[in-house]
Amino acid sequence: MANLLGTAHACAHPSLALTKYWGKRDSLRNIPATPSLAIGLAEFRCETRVRIYSGTSFHLTINGVPQNPDRFADFFSEIQRISREKGYRKTFSIEADSTANFPVAAGFASSSAGFAALALAANTALKLNMTTPEISALARVGSASAARAVYKGFTLLPAGGEHALSLPVHWPELRIIAVETHAGKKPISSRTAMERCRTSSPFYGEWLQDAANITAQAEAALYARSLPELGPLIRESYARMFAVMLSASPPIRYWTPLTLKVLDFVDSLRQEGGQYWETMDAGPQVKVFCKAKDCPRFLARLGESVPEAKARVCTGTYPNS
Amino acid sequence: MANLLGTAHACAHPSLALTKYWGKRDSLRNIPATPSLAIGLAEFRCETRVRIYSGTSFHLTINGVPQNPDRFADFFSEIQRISREKGYRKTFSIEADSTANFPVAAGFASSSAGFAALALAANTALKLNMTTPEISALARVGSASAARAVYKGFTLLPAGGEHALSLPVHWPELRIIAVETHAGKKPISSRTAMERCRTSSPFYGEWLQDAANITAQAEAALYARSLPELGPLIRESYARMFAVMLSASPPIRYWTPLTLKVLDFVDSLRQEGGQYWETMDAGPQVKVFCKAKDCPRFLARLGESVPEAKARVCTGTYPNS
Repeated sequence: MANLLGTAHACAHPSLALTKYWGKRDSLRNIPATPSLAIGLAEFRCETRVRIYSGTSFHLTINGVPQNPDRFADFFSEIQRISREKGYRKTFSIEADSTANFPVAAGFASSSAGFAALALAANTALKLNMTTPEISALARVGSASAARAVYKGFTLLPAGGEHALSLPVHWPELRIIAVETHAGKKPISSRTAMERCRTSSPFYGEWLQDAANITAQAEAALYARSLPELGPLIRESYARMFAVMLSASPPIRYWTPLTLKVLDFVDSLRQEGGQYWETMDAGPQVKVFCKAKDCPRFLARLGESVPEAKARVCTGTYPNS
Repeated sequence: MANLLGTAHACAHPSLALTKYWGKRDSLRNIPATPSLAIGLAEFRCETRVRIYSGTSFHLTINGVPQNPDRFADFFSEIQRISREKGYRKTFSIEADSTANFPVAAGFASSSAGFAALALAANTALKLNMTTPEISALARVGSASAARAVYKGFTLLPAGGEHALSLPVHWPELRIIAVETHAGKKPISSRTAMERCRTSSPFYGEWLQDAANITAQAEAALYARSLPELGPLIRESYARMFAVMLSASPPIRYWTPLTLKVLDFVDSLRQEGGQYWETMDAGPQVKVFCKAKDCPRFLARLGESVPEAKARVCTGTYPNS
């Protein structure tokens, strides 16, 4: 039995992008090719406990299910490199157990919360004394969106960025209604889908340029805390990301019939003048930005129109709450 | 009561594009910006009766419903110009009644059949003695895809083309299964949607280039009558057209929940090795290319999996049948 050398626990929340990260500038180092603005979802939690032993192995379970270590090899190499460089342990084994209170690998940004919690806990357990930007950069190696999830509140991960930045925007009346349309795992991982887009979509180059423009506009609208200005940009960002997927060869399509019912429903509320702006990630789920005062109307109408969709209201994570 | 100066009747079939016409090079003259390969659907018919009177007015009914003459103003001007240029009547009125045995303005290329039948019947009723390419160019002014529908069999409307070309390909074992997912009119016309794509999609320029590449490859696969080669190109063409729509501002989305059920169903048959390749036009309907021998399996499985979808098997129109 190996000696227990350290242990720690951390919690992180999925980082929901307002403007979408889709595509890598450097796939080995997981450097994003598009900038992304995001907010953490306070009610969705990933709890991770890390134990450090001697040896050089890595084991992780998610909700009790052992995971393929290949998916974590780059992350494990990186934390070993950091530890050696800082003059700490040269070799160690990590055992980690994660639990999430929301569907995993289904389009709820579970990998952002998972790798953020893992990086935070591993830093403590190994006593590496990393700064938050350093932890962000480590988490990025596992999943680029995890670079954002180590911070609370609004974040920006720049195109080409090593780590995310925390944005000084406080907008507590904002709500995110997560509408679950399918609980199962998605048929193709984001990682594989992104790579197919890069290598086969004729629109990929234009997407990268356009994503930078949209993010710059969205950042200004976010500082102004103007949902009528921000909303259409949020919508264009995800729609164009899905357009790139649809233009890949063969085409990628994450939407389910229930996804479309929910999108039509949100359109109908907006046509009545409601300030409800949806986004989606690689997967079938729909997330709707609105103000706190407008949640009851959304939930009541969704219950009438699309009773089979499961909705959960989330607040943002904020640094001082 | 005005004098009846001439009358004629014509029938035309919707022209279903294998590679998609989407975008105009010249919107006043309705010149396409992408090339399109197509086949007529023999079982879908539009019958049009034209009567010529003195005067200078234009009236048209579709299935007994009077239509807004604005939509036909360019066509009417063009046929007046041709008549004057050829030294025939200088002024005349046209009254036309169309009936279609399939849903109109719902994504079944009804305008292609409608304007083709109108151009064919008007040429006869006015005794203009136009050649088929001339009739094709006249029909194009009403709807670019109608330029194809004046011919039988496989056709090509080149990018920048004034009229379509008939292709010498005979492929009688090919079938097109038209799957109806929604009978109502579409929420936004193709004409309006195309213009929104041209003016707001960041992917529009790349779409035009890519459409030319796909059509060139598809033409070669069509001459080889190879469905395994042609099928993926048909699929890419429509998927990229929808990607351009999704990338417009605001995004355009013609799909219904039932559309997605049918697309998932076709995917599942293809994953089992079946040669079924779908296309879609601006609207929610799905059309599937396959061989005659593979129709029974498709219909039986569709009846089990998506019983709410209505399927109709079509053969191509051929010049000598």
